[in-house]
Amino acid sequence: MPNFAYINNKFVDFKNAKIHVEDRGLQFADSVYEVIAVLNGNLIDLEFHLKRLQYSLKELDIKFKFKQSSLKKIFFNLLNKNKTTNGIIYLQITRGVQYREHKYENKLIPTLIIYSRNKNFNLPGKDFKGVNTITHEDLRWKRRDIKTVNLLPNIIAANKAKKARAYEAILLQNGKVTEGTSSNIWIIKNNNLITHPANTDILRGVTRTSILKIIKKTSLKLVEKSFTHKQLLNADEVFLTSSGSFITPILKIDKKKINNGKIGNITLKLAQMYSKSCMHG
Amino acid sequence: MPNFAYINNKFVDFKNAKIHVEDRGLQFADSVYEVIAVLNGNLIDLEFHLKRLQYSLKELDIKFKFKQSSLKKIFFNLLNKNKTTNGIIYLQITRGVQYREHKYENKLIPTLIIYSRNKNFNLPGKDFKGVNTITHEDLRWKRRDIKTVNLLPNIIAANKAKKARAYEAILLQNGKVTEGTSSNIWIIKNNNLITHPANTDILRGVTRTSILKIIKKTSLKLVEKSFTHKQLLNADEVFLTSSGSFITPILKIDKKKINNGKIGNITLKLAQMYSKSCMHG
Repeated sequence: MPNFAYINNKFVDFKNAKIHVEDRGLQFADSVYEVIAVLNGNLIDLEFHLKRLQYSLKELDIKFKFKQSSLKKIFFNLLNKNKTTNGIIYLQITRGVQYREHKYENKLIPTLIIYSRNKNFNLPGKDFKGVNTITHEDLRWKRRDIKTVNLLPNIIAANKAKKARAYEAILLQNGKVTEGTSSNIWIIKNNNLITHPANTDILRGVTRTSILKIIKKTSLKLVEKSFTHKQLLNADEVFLTSSGSFITPILKIDKKKINNGKIGNITLKLAQMYSKSCMHG
Repeated sequence: MPNFAYINNKFVDFKNAKIHVEDRGLQFADSVYEVIAVLNGNLIDLEFHLKRLQYSLKELDIKFKFKQSSLKKIFFNLLNKNKTTNGIIYLQITRGVQYREHKYENKLIPTLIIYSRNKNFNLPGKDFKGVNTITHEDLRWKRRDIKTVNLLPNIIAANKAKKARAYEAILLQNGKVTEGTSSNIWIIKNNNLITHPANTDILRGVTRTSILKIIKKTSLKLVEKSFTHKQLLNADEVFLTSSGSFITPILKIDKKKINNGKIGNITLKLAQMYSKSCMHG
């Protein structure tokens, strides 16, 4: 357990890091969040995270103003206090506390929650591992482009994965892959790298955004287009990306092995390139 | 503000009624709730609420066991401590506190939150009022039959209603009415009383369930079938039901007046019958 969290405007003991029961984050999932990876003390893809945070706040009309430099100061303070060198920063902003009522007042003071936790990542190297996955119906709402805590449909699918001893559930909507419960999904077929376009059907992953930059240095052809369940199962290689999983190879989907259950060469190469870019800022 | 809340297993000052930041209710909307009306000190439709609560818990695999008699004791204690004669009991159960991770542990201890608030209701009598509404796209997920705090799509639509100085937003899915953001919607046309069937597209309202019993005493013909936006606008009378609004007439939908903007006779009669049944238990 970490030592400290930052709530609203101060550092508090983590065990006393609490919010009121009429906080709209708790009563209505009226709240946005970000999870930022920390690798060797570096905040990975920080600017993309804060840009997306800004987008989520704007789309939900949550009036939280922040300076990147001030947040950064809090982040590094927390990493220091919690002795986090490798791990994550969790940041959540709710619309604030209000007499329970669906309609919200305009002048609420948003609640700010930040803490860090230690975590080891799956990076290319001798322990680099691929994972098993399942498929599950995509039960989510229609604005998945906003990073909110409206995550119950993700929880249901993720727990089905847990029961099947799988790492992630790949979500299907009308026979097509949208994304994972907390990751973007990518397939490689004949040197095409295919992933769902970043519209309201998926979250624009921060790692996804970084990969898009990286592949320009390769001979892969990027195709941002939704693909079918069948294309998924017949892909040469499949992998997922997220701030917590970086690039993680998918070796099995339900009962179907991908690339004979081995980490594919292209996936490995991309993981190495991304990992290297993270190490060197 | 009420004086007290009941958190987990004790009464606490309402201003100190807090939960931990890693409560899954806050981080994942991994939580169910009920709002029970209190009228002259009576808990309205209590059994239906607790039956639905049981259903929500079961569907989400939240392992919270309760005895109706124990909950009732807490409810009446709170009403007494908070001097609530007319108002609501708010009850929320989350899956509990856990290291943040989509997948949940099996042995979590659910968090229980209960408090009451005073409120006046819209009951048939000299102050009985009808309301204006808007229509809005139904953005919600696919399991609306479970009463969860996954309510952000409802918030968005309810706030659009607020901006339009309307009381409620009526949700439309593929041109058909599902329900309101926190109410069920009913139309009357040629002595038919039409409302959406209680499948996974809507929440099975407790007041809705009570109304279904009451109309057996009338000459109205019940039709549980989804109806179109056009049928809605062309109805003889329209009303909404919820635990907080009882039966409330709808006089306007976007720019269209219903029943010339006056409370309809059948709606009034039903509201009187339901109100009477609440008064007499």
